[in-house]
Amino acid sequence: MTEEKKIKVTVWNEFVHEQQNEAVKKLYPDGMHKVIADALNLQDDINASTATLEEPEHGLTEEVLAETDVLTWWGHMAHDKVNDEIVDRVQKRVLEGMGLICLHSAHFSKIFRRILGTNCSLKWREVAEKERLWNLEPGHPITQGIGEYIELPNTEMYGERFDIPTPDKLIFVSWFEGGEVFRSGCCWERGHGRIFYFRPGHETYPIFYNDEIIKVITNAVRWAKPRVQITDVCPNTEPLETLSEKNVDFGSAGIVQTAEDIS
Amino acid sequence: MTEEKKIKVTVWNEFVHEQQNEAVKKLYPDGMHKVIADALNLQDDINASTATLEEPEHGLTEEVLAETDVLTWWGHMAHDKVNDEIVDRVQKRVLEGMGLICLHSAHFSKIFRRILGTNCSLKWREVAEKERLWNLEPGHPITQGIGEYIELPNTEMYGERFDIPTPDKLIFVSWFEGGEVFRSGCCWERGHGRIFYFRPGHETYPIFYNDEIIKVITNAVRWAKPRVQITDVCPNTEPLETLSEKNVDFGSAGIVQTAEDIS
Amino acid sequence: MTEEKKIKVTVWNEFVHEQQNEAVKKLYPDGMHKVIADALNLQDDINASTATLEEPEHGLTEEVLAETDVLTWWGHMAHDKVNDEIVDRVQKRVLEGMGLICLHSAHFSKIFRRILGTNCSLKWREVAEKERLWNLEPGHPITQGIGEYIELPNTEMYGERFDIPTPDKLIFVSWFEGGEVFRSGCCWERGHGRIFYFRPGHETYPIFYNDEIIKVITNAVRWAKPRVQITDVCPNTEPLETLSEKNVDFGSAGIVQTAEDIS
Amino acid sequence: MTEEKKIKVTVWNEFVHEQQNEAVKKLYPDGMHKVIADALNLQDDINASTATLEEPEHGLTEEVLAETDVLTWWGHMAHDKVNDEIVDRVQKRVLEGMGLICLHSAHFSKIFRRILGTNCSLKWREVAEKERLWNLEPGHPITQGIGEYIELPNTEMYGERFDIPTPDKLIFVSWFEGGEVFRSGCCWERGHGRIFYFRPGHETYPIFYNDEIIKVITNAVRWAKPRVQITDVCPNTEPLETLSEKNVDFGSAGIVQTAEDIS
Repeated sequence: MTEEKKIKVTVWNEFVHEQQNEAVKKLYPDGMHKVIADALNLQDDINASTATLEEPEHGLTEEVLAETDVLTWWGHMAHDKVNDEIVDRVQKRVLEGMGLICLHSAHFSKIFRRILGTNCSLKWREVAEKERLWNLEPGHPITQGIGEYIELPNTEMYGERFDIPTPDKLIFVSWFEGGEVFRSGCCWERGHGRIFYFRPGHETYPIFYNDEIIKVITNAVRWAKPRVQITDVCPNTEPLETLSEKNVDFGSAGIVQTAEDIS
Repeated sequence: MTEEKKIKVTVWNEFVHEQQNEAVKKLYPDGMHKVIADALNLQDDINASTATLEEPEHGLTEEVLAETDVLTWWGHMAHDKVNDEIVDRVQKRVLEGMGLICLHSAHFSKIFRRILGTNCSLKWREVAEKERLWNLEPGHPITQGIGEYIELPNTEMYGERFDIPTPDKLIFVSWFEGGEVFRSGCCWERGHGRIFYFRPGHETYPIFYNDEIIKVITNAVRWAKPRVQITDVCPNTEPLETLSEKNVDFGSAGIVQTAEDIS
Repeated sequence: MTEEKKIKVTVWNEFVHEQQNEAVKKLYPDGMHKVIADALNLQDDINASTATLEEPEHGLTEEVLAETDVLTWWGHMAHDKVNDEIVDRVQKRVLEGMGLICLHSAHFSKIFRRILGTNCSLKWREVAEKERLWNLEPGHPITQGIGEYIELPNTEMYGERFDIPTPDKLIFVSWFEGGEVFRSGCCWERGHGRIFYFRPGHETYPIFYNDEIIKVITNAVRWAKPRVQITDVCPNTEPLETLSEKNVDFGSAGIVQTAEDIS
Repeated sequence: MTEEKKIKVTVWNEFVHEQQNEAVKKLYPDGMHKVIADALNLQDDINASTATLEEPEHGLTEEVLAETDVLTWWGHMAHDKVNDEIVDRVQKRVLEGMGLICLHSAHFSKIFRRILGTNCSLKWREVAEKERLWNLEPGHPITQGIGEYIELPNTEMYGERFDIPTPDKLIFVSWFEGGEVFRSGCCWERGHGRIFYFRPGHETYPIFYNDEIIKVITNAVRWAKPRVQITDVCPNTEPLETLSEKNVDFGSAGIVQTAEDIS
């Protein structure tokens, strides 16, 4: 495949745990983003780069985002360190058509909460328990190559109620050894972009070395790639039909009404 | 009905057009909010108050919102004058269970765009053309007492594409004389709250004096009233089942993970 | 409450297990329908009757259905003994506005599969394991009075993939001791009627004596009661607007086009 | 593209109007199915065949359906002549993963009503008025290459309320000269199959010679092609986890529980 036809993925990571916590550093010495991007780059049709919190503009300049087809996001400790202006920029690009894949603790990222409008809160517990992700949609592009379920021997638990808008499509539901369930794979469309939330990915377990997890993320990249890129407008338009005589044109009150005025 | 059992509605209006534009002032000398609240107060089960932009905290103090069951919102020229802190506060209350009804040009209000996460842009035209709102859900609480359609002889036109998340339920679709269509009545649930968008309500036409329009808003108030009030939490919880011996408690990395940390 | 204002519920049961299996007979000597109807009749606003397979027209005559606001359905061994004509009749009434609550093994009933259009198949196992139904929508009318979850010490297991259309609202998700999950409380609207599927209710366990289960069914009855009763039509209608001269009326080809012609 | 990789489409038509009505015969001398199939066969990746009512088994034998990726359906006068057994067969294949595209008056076909479970009724009028189909989802695969709207100078009118389950995605909404609106392009998923309803296609107008209409149908074929083929099962499964001692196996009551038993 020619380079220009490949899906351009930007793998974003706050990259903090890996530098502050020895156990995590041992697991992901170059950061989780490196492991995810390397795995994606094994695919002929994907060209993955990385970006992290400490880079200028968090590595998400206008130029980078303009070139990004799908953005994956991992964050946890440093959600509040992400600049609101960058969040605006990412949201704008998703609504224009860019794909967004939010991983694990990104449920609480500014961008995920912004684009969904809800708290995105949940129950949680970190005791290395077993998780089994049941595949509810074997016909969906995101589950191709995945069997009836994915088993993870040790994970952090996330439990319902997950405060999200009803997903357009619910792909995975997790069973946890400790007794909870969770909507672990969820699809939404917002504007012209597609969004996928995928629960696994805790930093203290080798989740991103798991082939099935990488398979799901790879499938999700293909599913979320843009079909269009459309810039938002709110146009004043002429009638397409001849209006009846009785119409009186009060005229516009000269009010500028665009999204930019209020953003 | 005892006063305490009534549905407490706060009718919010930016109240700018009515003070700056003679034609609008003539139509709504005390503001659109007064006309809407008066109409709602004719109902035995509703107790409506008003709030406007120029009041302290836009009239939406913590106390007022804590007492509000359903908030209706009209804004247009002054969307950008609404304080972000108040928008946060309203969003929090909707997610806790308060109802929100956004009218007409409130499609571009900060609160509507915040809670939905999309641009909420559309086509528009102001030539006093005819609109016919078709009732797609005659069985829905919001359309009780409404026939097959509502006709408005003169309205501003709003046309598709309306950039919103797919509504949970699409109640009205408008036909416009000039050739467009629009999803004019849309329901969503976010958090524990219900949201209704209703298209009619342009300030230069006597829309809020129309009995059918008031009927829809009244029905929507009853539909949107809270079923619960639940404060958001993201709790660390104990397992409900005995975990197997093989589990290793890596322990929490001591990370505080609440919505407040990142808001 | 006056008798005529009460919600009229018909509790339908195939009533076969209770007559053929000693263990079930011991648990439900007069049938599960009797236990459910008695529980519903403790409510001031509900008037519940019963109907069973062996009655003429399965107890679901035109008259009975015309008077029924909400129909609950339990079937298992004898799904295929339900007459197709009665299934047509029930479907017609649901589309007109009657509520339908399908319990447990009614997932495979003719009426449930008819109204949803899918196979409604699932995984199952009968080893008396523990089930925990997680409440995903604490703000929904169906979960009022229910806490974070309902626990059943012994149940038959139903596991995903449950072959249903994506529910309009997913209310409960079950966790099973044996490792599966299931969408155990699901809401849909079809025509003008509301449908609720509720998983618990296996005949060999005392599920319908459980207060929380009865609470959910009672709530569901109130949620599913008709808002309207509208007979289906497919009318040939006159234009509401003056058509342009260029229009040529080819005239109807004299084709009768109603639902009845093809049913 | 190799023949075996092409999308295999079966274009089904009742083919009655074209043989009984002179005006229709003149427009579609070999039937609408021929025009649609010819247009689809201009695409490199599509291999379209036809089938009609009067062929044995309506041309939809087990063999034909097993080889069909996407079935398009046009019917009107003769809905009731379609054998129920064939309807069962088509429904089974859609639930297994086959795509289904229902055109115009197929809203009242047995297969469409079967798979959706509702009446699928609507308003209608045949006065050759203008229709404008607004494109609500410019990012959707089905609208690629289509602009803001499609205009048809002369069509039969279909008006709301269209008695369908809320579409998973609403693609087109029509404006009619006579004053009505209609949900003209609707997507659903049922089982593992995708379903698209597309309103245009009245037999007395040259709709299927319109390039944009053909473009939509072609796009819909690509969107609806199977991702999987999965035969329905309802298996009795072993637990994946060790169950606690307290469990008592009441044992299965020896009840065979499969979809076939009740179909």
